[in-house]
Order: sequence, then C-alpha cells, then structure tokens
Amino acid sequence: MDTGRGRTGTGAATGSAPTLEDVARAAGVSRATVSRVVNGVRNVDPAIREAVRRAVAATGYVPNRAARSLVTRRSGAVALVVSGTGAGAGAASGAGAGAGRDGDSDAVARVFQDPFFGRVTGAVVQALRPRGVHPVLMFADAAEDRAQVLAYLGQGGADGALLVTTHADDPLPGMLAGAGLAAVRFSRPEPGAPPLDWVDLRHREGGALAAGHLAGRGRRRLAVIAGPGRLAASRERVAGFLGGAGPATPVVEGDFTVEGGERAMRRLLAERPDLDGVFAANDLMAQGACLVLGEHGRRVPDDVAVVGFDDSSAATAGRPRLTTVRQPVEAMATEMVRLLLDRLASPAAPPAEVLFAPSLIVRDSA
Amino acid sequence: MDTGRGRTGTGAATGSAPTLEDVARAAGVSRATVSRVVNGVRNVDPAIREAVRRAVAATGYVPNRAARSLVTRRSGAVALVVSGTGAGAGAASGAGAGAGRDGDSDAVARVFQDPFFGRVTGAVVQALRPRGVHPVLMFADAAEDRAQVLAYLGQGGADGALLVTTHADDPLPGMLAGAGLAAVRFSRPEPGAPPLDWVDLRHREGGALAAGHLAGRGRRRLAVIAGPGRLAASRERVAGFLGGAGPATPVVEGDFTVEGGERAMRRLLAERPDLDGVFAANDLMAQGACLVLGEHGRRVPDDVAVVGFDDSSAATAGRPRLTTVRQPVEAMATEMVRLLLDRLASPAAPPAEVLFAPSLIVRDSA
Repeated sequence: MDTGRGRTGTGAATGSAPTLEDVARAAGVSRATVSRVVNGVRNVDPAIREAVRRAVAATGYVPNRAARSLVTRRSGAVALVVSGTGAGAGAASGAGAGAGRDGDSDAVARVFQDPFFGRVTGAVVQALRPRGVHPVLMFADAAEDRAQVLAYLGQGGADGALLVTTHADDPLPGMLAGAGLAAVRFSRPEPGAPPLDWVDLRHREGGALAAGHLAGRGRRRLAVIAGPGRLAASRERVAGFLGGAGPATPVVEGDFTVEGGERAMRRLLAERPDLDGVFAANDLMAQGACLVLGEHGRRVPDDVAVVGFDDSSAATAGRPRLTTVRQPVEAMATEMVRLLLDRLASPAAPPAEVLFAPSLIVRDSA
Repeated sequence: MDTGRGRTGTGAATGSAPTLEDVARAAGVSRATVSRVVNGVRNVDPAIREAVRRAVAATGYVPNRAARSLVTRRSGAVALVVSGTGAGAGAASGAGAGAGRDGDSDAVARVFQDPFFGRVTGAVVQALRPRGVHPVLMFADAAEDRAQVLAYLGQGGADGALLVTTHADDPLPGMLAGAGLAAVRFSRPEPGAPPLDWVDLRHREGGALAAGHLAGRGRRRLAVIAGPGRLAASRERVAGFLGGAGPATPVVEGDFTVEGGERAMRRLLAERPDLDGVFAANDLMAQGACLVLGEHGRRVPDDVAVVGFDDSSAATAGRPRLTTVRQPVEAMATEMVRLLLDRLASPAAPPAEVLFAPSLIVRDSA
C-alpha cells in the first residue's frame, strides 16, 4: 500500500511524532544505522544496537510502514494460507463450490490444533519478525475462501502467500500463479502444475529410514498406519516404507490424529495379531497406536516396535518416547519465508525448489 | 484503508471485473441478498445462499474490500497479538526495552506449540471467516514489538486487536487504550488498569472444583503444580485450590509445559513421597506429572489422583485420560471477536466484561 521509500522528515518539530532522525541524533548514530536496527538487520554491533534501542524508547519513536518499507517496500504482511485436511476435499476436487463452508468447523479446529501448524506458525512469525512483517492467517478450503485470498493479495493487504497443507488437487496455487501473485508452497507441485517456489521433504526417503530401522531391530511382521491418501506427502512416506518392508505389508489409513491412529491400530491388531513392528505416517497416529497397544497388553518396543513421523511435540509427550523420522518443519517454514522474500525482490527469477532431508531420531518406541 | 461504504457500480461493462450486480442478476436475487451471502450473514435461506454461491462461481465475482466493508467498514484484518510466557517478562516489568528480542526463540516456539494457542487461533479464524476478516498474527514481547503493533493498527493495517496470554504487567493494553485503538483482552485487567473489553474465566472457581473433586475421592495428602507466578490466571487457579485443600499444601511452580510438569512432579515426590492427589494448573503439566508418577511405579489414579486444567487436546492424548477443569477457550475466543466487532461499531460504549464458568470434566486420572 505504501509506495514511499522512507521518511524524509528533517527533525522533530515541537509536538510532532518523533522521527528516525530524532532517534539517530539521540543515539549518536547515522539514520541508516537506525533503519538497520529498526528493521532487524543482524550485522550491527550489539552495543550500537542497544544504544539505538534505548534511543527508540527515549524518543518514543514508532517505526512506521514507510520505515519498514525501506526493507520490504510492501504492505508489512504476508498471507499464511492453510487449507484443511478434511471437509475441503470435496470442494477441492470440484464437487461443489460452496462445500465445506458451513460443515467444517471440526476441520478448522483440527488443523489449528495439530502440532504441525504450531511449528509452522512459530517459525514463520520468527522469520518475519525482524523485518517487521506479520503473517495474516487465512483458512482456504472452499471456492469463496480462495476468492478472498486472491482479493486480499490483489488489493495489497499482503505481499505474497505461504501455502501450507495444500492438497495435490488444490486449485489455489494455480490461481495465485495465474494472477501473477507471489506464493511459496510447502509441498512439491504435481507434474504439470503451474510454476511456484516450493519446499518439501524427501518423504519417500523418510519412509525408507523407518523400514530400515525396524528391519535392523529384527522386526519382520510389519504394518502401516497411513495418512490421508489424497496427500502426496502421506503416499510418499508409505511408498518409501513399503519399498523396504515389502508390498504385502498391511496398510490401514488414518487421518493424522491420535484418535485416527487408535482406530487404525485396532484394525491392524484384528487383521494381524502377530505383528511386531508398526510404521505410522505421523507422530500423533503413532501416539494413538502406542495407547492401543498398551491397552492390549503389548509392550512397546519389546512386543511391538513403533516408528512415527515428524518429530513433533507429540513424539516426547507420551511414554515410550517415540522413535520417529524427523521432518525439520521449522527450517522448512523459515526457508519458505526466505523464498517468498526473494520472490518479491526478483519476480521474474525461475521457480526455486528446496528439498529437505529426513533423519531418524531413535528414542524408546523402536 | 478503505473509506468507501461499498461498490456503486451500475453493471458489468464488457471486459471489466464482475460486480455484485452481475451476481445478483445471475442469481435472480437482490444486491442486498448477495451482499449478505458474501459477507456470511447467517439468516439467509440455504437454497438462496446456494444460488448466490453458484452465481459467484459462474460470474467469477471476487468479493473485494469495499464489499466486505459493507459489514466491517474497515481493513479486513484484526491483529491477534500473543505475548510470550518467558523471555518477555523482563521487558514487561521494565528491566530493559530491548530484552527478549534476540534470546527468545524458544519462548516463541513454546507459545505457538501450546494447544491453547491452536484453540484460540482456530476459534478466531472461524469467528472472523464468515465476515471475510482475517487475523494478523503478532508476537509482542519487547518494546519494539509493541511499537510495531501500535504502528500497524494506527496506520490501518488492522482494525483492532485481540490480546492473548498477556502478563498482568504487560504495558501493551494500556498503550492501545491510550492510543484510542480497539482492543479486547483474554484476561481480566488488574485494578486501575486502563479500561478495555475483556473475557476471562473464573479461575479461582476452577481451582476449587479440582480441590472438591480430590476431597470427594478421599484424597488428603495433596500437592500442587502451579503455573508461572507472574500470570494472574495461574495464581487464581492455585488460590482457589488451596482454599479447598488447605494452605499447608506443598506447591511447586512449573512453566505450563510437559517437561515443566515432569520436573515439578519429581520435586514434589521427593518432598512428599506419600502424596495421593495432585492438582496441576494446566493439562500439559498434568500430563508430565502422570509420566513421572508412572516412572516411579505409582498408579494413576489408584495411588495418586491427578487433576489438570484446560481440557485441551493434551487431556485425551495420553493414558490415563485426564480429569480436568475445562476452560472453554473456543467460546471465549469467539466472544472476544464478538466484543471487538461490537467495539468497532460502538467506540464509545462502556467496556464489556465477560466471565466464563469453569466445569469439571471427569475422566480416568482422578
């Protein structure tokens, strides 16, 4: 919204708001140095930074959008767009433009209470904070939501979008690309999808790590709790695991919640009572699996070894602590922010693709 | 940012963007009806709503800020301001204006991964969504952050602020009130604090419910895991419990995390090995207490009964499922949104105060 490059005031007239110049004078530094400190640029001597901060407090200077725009040149906001995991699937696959709008309060609650969302949000807030930029949270599951995201960005409410938990068939990335808006995806696009910057994890490699670990522990009667089949990330994790464990391994689909993991584990125990190793496609479902195994008198890991995926807070919130495949969500979200800022600086650059490597975190469950 | 009250276009000129009128014509309804549907007003016949939605999709109409402003008359955003629970305490109590800015990445991560934050966010997103309004997430722990919040609101980036997890001595509410900005607090202000709308829970009553339940279960050798002492909510919960349990009950302070609950439980077991009842001031700490009790061979609830507080997702993510004092966070956050919208509509109305009642949810841990 702001087009100016900064304040041009020449000093503090009596009664007017304090300016960057007032702060510079009070701190005994240059205007450029004040700007760097206010905008959180890191390579400033700590003593000078502290002097500037004291001068900011003493003068009552309020960094304004114009000052921020020295660095961002924009609205001071980016959209953090979350698409749901449940009710929106119908809308996303074209079943109805208005679907999901009224009946999806559970989906909204589930998305925002997943530890994944907290990790993404915390990292995005931290990455944007030194720049004085803030994320605008948008939940986009239905056609109407998507229109709002486009309108908000198109009208300058935010400079670009960070897209998380999008389905493979989510039309939003294509709509943003088509409108020439800056956007970065948390997931690798399907072949042929419109070009956008993205970060993703080598999910398949993560599944293979889990299979290798269970094999190394001598487990041969394996089973899998998959995530929702419409999510490429879930499909890849399972495919990577089955590549190591063998395609005859029974697979039951869960919904990435503790309760979903409990239900899936009950079915697997009924199907294959002699199982000795379980791979769950996220930690919440692994947590649910451990609860059900305990209820059935199976010791984890002695009787049944369990490997999760994510290394979220859920991995250490129960007992046994989960052995899990770590997805470095914070680093990935931070990279998304970096890519978006790069994109805003260089709109015509070719799309960037950043793949992160999973790693196995061995704790107590396998 | 927008000052207009709505679109005044008179129809779709060839090649121009579709208007509200185009949608009204395509749906065969009035312009007012389209506006009501687009803005999510609820008392519209479902069939008409569906017809309007189809017309929106068919015409490619994008609701814009002006259309939203028919209802909100504002920027289409409100600030959701979270203040930290850890590193910011120094800054908030005046120890240093810049404190907490560089060293608080753990605090930021902790705040956003707490299930409390997910519940608030989900409810705020849902309450704002039908109005086409979105929350701008801001983390404000240091003087510089607070200045940014004021600047962002003052310059119209957001219409008002929802303040959560503020400390009793957080200067931000006073700064917002002083600047004449609309804000609603999640916590009751200290006596003498500047007047702002607020919602809160009868925390003391919640603590008393926990004490009454443990007494009813015949538990007499009680102990308390408190939250951070600087939070009024935590102090009140503990005071309410001690009113029922007796002031000689040992109290150890935790930090509202699972790990903090584990540490506190270890200290309490060392101090009072014969304890048979524990009240933890939130569910995460109760979860940690159960883990440590299990490690020490104490059965919950047979040997030691444990009562938590919040009824968050943590209450059912472990075993035994927690008996807990429910804080209706979603309803409270929804009420905050309602109060903020009321405040924007009636800036001069006296401050509203809404107190919610806690309730005891009996599950397996006590």
